[in-house]
Amino acid sequence: MPDQLIIFDTTLRDGEQSPGASMTKEEKLRIARQLERLKVDVIEAGFAASSNGDFEAVQAIAQSIKDSTVCSLARANDRDISRAAQALASAERARIHTFIATSALHMEKKLRMTPEQVLEQARLSVRFARNLCADIEFSPEDGYRSDPDFLCRVLEAVIAEGATTINVPDTVGYAVPELYGHFIRQLRERVPNSDRAIWSVHCHNDLGMAVANSLAGVKIGGARQVECTINGLGERAGNCALEEVVMAVRTRRDYFGLDVNIDTRHIVPASRMVSQTTGFVVQPNKAVVGANAFAHASGIHQDGVLKARDTYEIMRAEDVGWSANKIVLGKLSGRNAFKQRLQDLGVQLESESEVNAAFARFKELADRKSEIFDEDILALVIAEDTAAHQERFGFVSLSQHSETGERPHASIVFTMDGKEVRGESDGNGPVDASLKAIESHVRSGAEMVLYSVNAISGSTESQGEVTVRLQDAGRVVNGVGADPDIVVASAKAYLSALNKLQSKADRVAAQG
Amino acid sequence: MPDQLIIFDTTLRDGEQSPGASMTKEEKLRIARQLERLKVDVIEAGFAASSNGDFEAVQAIAQSIKDSTVCSLARANDRDISRAAQALASAERARIHTFIATSALHMEKKLRMTPEQVLEQARLSVRFARNLCADIEFSPEDGYRSDPDFLCRVLEAVIAEGATTINVPDTVGYAVPELYGHFIRQLRERVPNSDRAIWSVHCHNDLGMAVANSLAGVKIGGARQVECTINGLGERAGNCALEEVVMAVRTRRDYFGLDVNIDTRHIVPASRMVSQTTGFVVQPNKAVVGANAFAHASGIHQDGVLKARDTYEIMRAEDVGWSANKIVLGKLSGRNAFKQRLQDLGVQLESESEVNAAFARFKELADRKSEIFDEDILALVIAEDTAAHQERFGFVSLSQHSETGERPHASIVFTMDGKEVRGESDGNGPVDASLKAIESHVRSGAEMVLYSVNAISGSTESQGEVTVRLQDAGRVVNGVGADPDIVVASAKAYLSALNKLQSKADRVAAQG
Repeated sequence: MPDQLIIFDTTLRDGEQSPGASMTKEEKLRIARQLERLKVDVIEAGFAASSNGDFEAVQAIAQSIKDSTVCSLARANDRDISRAAQALASAERARIHTFIATSALHMEKKLRMTPEQVLEQARLSVRFARNLCADIEFSPEDGYRSDPDFLCRVLEAVIAEGATTINVPDTVGYAVPELYGHFIRQLRERVPNSDRAIWSVHCHNDLGMAVANSLAGVKIGGARQVECTINGLGERAGNCALEEVVMAVRTRRDYFGLDVNIDTRHIVPASRMVSQTTGFVVQPNKAVVGANAFAHASGIHQDGVLKARDTYEIMRAEDVGWSANKIVLGKLSGRNAFKQRLQDLGVQLESESEVNAAFARFKELADRKSEIFDEDILALVIAEDTAAHQERFGFVSLSQHSETGERPHASIVFTMDGKEVRGESDGNGPVDASLKAIESHVRSGAEMVLYSVNAISGSTESQGEVTVRLQDAGRVVNGVGADPDIVVASAKAYLSALNKLQSKADRVAAQG
Repeated sequence: MPDQLIIFDTTLRDGEQSPGASMTKEEKLRIARQLERLKVDVIEAGFAASSNGDFEAVQAIAQSIKDSTVCSLARANDRDISRAAQALASAERARIHTFIATSALHMEKKLRMTPEQVLEQARLSVRFARNLCADIEFSPEDGYRSDPDFLCRVLEAVIAEGATTINVPDTVGYAVPELYGHFIRQLRERVPNSDRAIWSVHCHNDLGMAVANSLAGVKIGGARQVECTINGLGERAGNCALEEVVMAVRTRRDYFGLDVNIDTRHIVPASRMVSQTTGFVVQPNKAVVGANAFAHASGIHQDGVLKARDTYEIMRAEDVGWSANKIVLGKLSGRNAFKQRLQDLGVQLESESEVNAAFARFKELADRKSEIFDEDILALVIAEDTAAHQERFGFVSLSQHSETGERPHASIVFTMDGKEVRGESDGNGPVDASLKAIESHVRSGAEMVLYSVNAISGSTESQGEVTVRLQDAGRVVNGVGADPDIVVASAKAYLSALNKLQSKADRVAAQG
């Protein structure tokens, strides 16, 4: 049995599936590069057959990532698998991950197929995939709630067809550690030739036990791959959190006796990047990456900890990439310093003209804000990414006023299909007035389901980062905007969300 | 062995200990009432000897709570225990919870005591406490990292002295489920007369396994009390989350075979109350209480779920208190409807004049905002609570303006020691300008370590709820403010934080 635990990150696939977390190709590429920097073994980049946008994202990641295996999900049918193989064509190391549900409930209610049909489809799909790619992962969806006898037959068949990784998902987060660990062990003991595949666990957090379940699958069950996401992002209560599972294996090496490749110093930057991109906040009491997870990271110095840190801390904050907010650049920083900092942050801009545009924005920000933090630079580049891609809507200028006893009022100028338009409106507050001023022209009719603000580096002197989540005809998108003026940040976030709604609509239309 | 699992909530003690989560007496009382409504078995109300403020909070909760046992923490010394007993004097059912560290590291570095001294102090303290109260809980701090032989001697001694509950904390969140479960079992098997006490688990979430560890302590170890907090609030990565441990025991009754008293329909309201009070956000992918935890609670309707909900959901959202945002009141609602709604929300105002003041605020809000949600009413009452207690600073009016190309500017009128003062300032944004305008008079010198905003009911038409966290001379406080105008809400939050800094300083001064 190898003593290496494979870390399979699915932030870009299962994570992105959570309502409101959808990302653009550029955003996915940026996160994939950070995952590569983290030394994740396998990056599940998307679900190539699900849309043209997803196909392109998987393709772009396959072209750009060299150190990690790049994987695409595919339903157990030839079309999905062909699309996955096509998207992965230029990958240094590629994996196709195919799945079909095996629980009675899912087969009957969702697939409307008999168990024999499911078994046959699983077998044929893996056979088909194996001819396109040497590295094949198979998942029986809702595996943990499946009949063990039937599941054994399916897994035996797919191993015989050449599946190299067998992943057993607890799709609905129903497992408890002891039972899940023994379930995996029992499968590995009963399935003939089980040792020809690496066994993998994929747990959801509905009862708050995704990490413990995954680790029981490893320790008791003998699995050697864990599927996880940054910040535990994912549908409903999310997936097993990469940062927690990795730090548990590291911190309790005495118990697990396993190695992981992860360069943990990139964990906190990865967490911030995912949170900034999706607009999903990380709660302060989140393990490892929450603002309070380490006493000193929240700016608090407690006597006990200062006397002997290990009285209360079992990990070191710097090992997971926490560092005090540092003023990294200012008004007088030159283009080279800026470019160097981008490189250190792992941001790769496509061309010199993109660097120039980002640098111009940086200078403009430095005029208004004396201390520029890493988070500011990241926010700036995210904005730049968006602007560089000729979106339909763009922010130009805003004027707003509110006064106790009067109705708040805003006037905004923005571009719409390349033309400048001006909107005016009053509202319940200045933000409400500004967004209504935009809507007075756009008339998207989208419903706002979330509005939140975080100051990028703690105080109101810093930039405010606003997330706006819009819902329209079943589609949910997040827009993010940053500016020292919270009302301007809100307008930018709203325009960014409108752009995403638009491009999602285009994608769906293109798919036919 | 009883088949009842005792739920011991320590939101008001261990939860409040997290930097920035400190609460006023009124806030604690409101949360205690919600915990009683939840049917929590034991409410740890505070640490009576730690400050006059904490003493008064424990006392007020002991006077007001009838259905739950009320508990105070106390170090293992006579003074602490006497203060706890005093604060609990009028409780219907009281518990004193005394603790001393037993790990080599903590005894040497923190206590600077020998093991024999610790053993003796534990014994004498429980003996002393037992004369004041029939219900005594003892915790060996950092118990999980303690030498088992020594720990057994300590626990044997305190049971002999009459401790009725033995709680074994994993103080630093170092445990894994299997090991922790067997650790508890081993203690119960080795300590003579272990069956004279109820065994309890107290786990921290540093490696993301607090819930699984607690449940392993129950299932494998035979513990029958779990210590937990709403939203998993607590130092660093927090404590075991009440909502997760309760729903795991309920959902997997087939495995645990245990009953809990909790009325789960009050879970989501409790989560919101704690989050609104402390300003600690709940991330969307948080189990049970996160906005995305249930597909349909986030406003998303997925085909799969609509076809057969149990294909993806193992719990029902309505069982934990999720309900769609309902417009509960409006402009035309009368005083009786308002009072009734307060009652339904579990808010008890002290006097008719307080109801009148809250109602006046409600009418004022209804003039500016057509749809009033439960969250608005709670925010209003939280503001009312603050206003009713003659705080040092109070909001009067604000005027602010920002325009692209100009420096944002604000002018604010507020009360300071009963007198109206006006401040003016510019700033990086309108919020920054408003807070600087306040500081131009107050000159608190406090450092802002967190600024965040959430729209109370999803869209910018609703009220914005702002949290401001200030730090000054090692003290950390959160101020919360709500208003349809985000700049006004920010100013209110800042003034509320200044009031808390002030009252915390007074409390410390009073203590001497």
